[in-house]
Amino acid sequence: MDDFIVGVDLGGTKIYTVLATLDGKAQAEVEVPTYAAEGYEQVLGRIAGTVDKVKRLAGLSGRLLRVGLGAPGPLDIEKGVVYVAPNLGWRDVPLKASLEALLGVPVFLDNDANLAAWGEFVYGAGKGMRNLVYITVSTGIGGGLVFGGRLYRGAGYGAGEIGHITVLPDGPRCHCGNRGCLEALASGTAVAREAKELIARGGGQGILALAGGAVEAVTAKTVGLAAAQGDAEARELFVNAARWLGIGVAAVLNLLNPEVVVLGGGMMRSAALFWETLQDEVKRRAFPSAWKAARLMPGVSWK
Amino acid sequence: MDDFIVGVDLGGTKIYTVLATLDGKAQAEVEVPTYAAEGYEQVLGRIAGTVDKVKRLAGLSGRLLRVGLGAPGPLDIEKGVVYVAPNLGWRDVPLKASLEALLGVPVFLDNDANLAAWGEFVYGAGKGMRNLVYITVSTGIGGGLVFGGRLYRGAGYGAGEIGHITVLPDGPRCHCGNRGCLEALASGTAVAREAKELIARGGGQGILALAGGAVEAVTAKTVGLAAAQGDAEARELFVNAARWLGIGVAAVLNLLNPEVVVLGGGMMRSAALFWETLQDEVKRRAFPSAWKAARLMPGVSWK
Repeated sequence: MDDFIVGVDLGGTKIYTVLATLDGKAQAEVEVPTYAAEGYEQVLGRIAGTVDKVKRLAGLSGRLLRVGLGAPGPLDIEKGVVYVAPNLGWRDVPLKASLEALLGVPVFLDNDANLAAWGEFVYGAGKGMRNLVYITVSTGIGGGLVFGGRLYRGAGYGAGEIGHITVLPDGPRCHCGNRGCLEALASGTAVAREAKELIARGGGQGILALAGGAVEAVTAKTVGLAAAQGDAEARELFVNAARWLGIGVAAVLNLLNPEVVVLGGGMMRSAALFWETLQDEVKRRAFPSAWKAARLMPGVSWK
Repeated sequence: MDDFIVGVDLGGTKIYTVLATLDGKAQAEVEVPTYAAEGYEQVLGRIAGTVDKVKRLAGLSGRLLRVGLGAPGPLDIEKGVVYVAPNLGWRDVPLKASLEALLGVPVFLDNDANLAAWGEFVYGAGKGMRNLVYITVSTGIGGGLVFGGRLYRGAGYGAGEIGHITVLPDGPRCHCGNRGCLEALASGTAVAREAKELIARGGGQGILALAGGAVEAVTAKTVGLAAAQGDAEARELFVNAARWLGIGVAAVLNLLNPEVVVLGGGMMRSAALFWETLQDEVKRRAFPSAWKAARLMPGVSWK
């Protein structure tokens, strides 16, 4: 009776899939690149591939009861439709129906950041709190909100898009169409773009070397590696991103006055480099009472 | 048995006080200037004066049971302490205790925008909605949040300070200490400041004339009058304020995905002049799904 469930985290750069027994114990996991540019059908196929793979890896004899899928962007959890996922190039795609047809099991779809917020609230850094804001900083910037101990989804399941508050009105164009979104200034995509622009101006040679001399291979990860090795330009790129993030977090503190802000996502792995800058900027801009009331904490997984 | 209650709306420029019988029928009202610069004790005295005056005006024989007081800024409704009220120059003042000592009746203190949000939710433009954001644009900019049919106050009763989200990181200094707050760009105070700067540069003669030629007498109201008369410079000041407000409202839509955003406050009396600009800016910056889900509505009172 080894029935099991599968959870899929669908991101702009990778698909992370885990299989667990019904008591919540992970049995197998697999991670593959998303390759979003190849198109919707191809991404669906890769998701299905990871589900098959974890089943093979776990080698359990029971049935797969359900797949839980976290996807980026505003979506409708009842209809199972993703409205906009800029990092995947998707608009109004019937993700739940497509995957159910492919997998033959019920799929529960929710916003990835909502699911992460709920996880941090139930098991993680926000355990025991009433009002939690979760922010994930990775390829994009997403968020999830827990108010009064309940996940807050808003009118159309779209709440929590902290990456798309404007922090610089005439700033860089964001995938979503707006200018100067937090995501366009503090995400992994933004740091990579800034690094490439720096290299185009003749700087960033330390970063470029770590990318094997190929400017198109520079990612936020490359910049993070350079920063960890003490490269001053790379560190400055991360410090700038941390300042922008601090502006966004301060807005969230003044608007929502939460007890805790949990920060997760791939970009936060380099957090030690800019955690202090982030906190300084938040403290400088938020009401003292809102600052005092809120703890800033790293997510339990830093994934 | 004509027992009664009194409600006080304490603002940066005026104190508005109304007396009502217990069935909620207003019997008398009075409005006086705040003159915050004269200091805390003087403002307290003026509040007490308005309470005496509405009692005399109403001429009822019963008892005053309770005073409800809406005050600006983050505050603690249990302790009755106002933490920060930039437009009044207050920090950590025991407003509830001070007024109870002066009036001899229980005082219920809450954030003015919270009370307005609740009023709009129960009786006004947000009736029947689940998730409402109230924004008041007057001397300052405040807000109140109703999520899932309940007033959301945050960890320290400080939620809803939409006036203090940063919309221009290196923008004008705000009363709160931060730079480029929405309040520093779209409030009545901001419009008056911009008008004075325009006059200092030799422009704004139409506005100046309406202030009797005295630049220090220019307020947002003067600018609103000039705009209503077709003055192009005055209209531009309001249109700019509307754009900043739109940036803030778009952030709120993306972050909170409400069914309705209710806009009130003195500045909104001139709303006909810039309602369209406000909507254009919100539409341009918010996710299409968040824009579709939310109605922008004027508050029932426009007060």
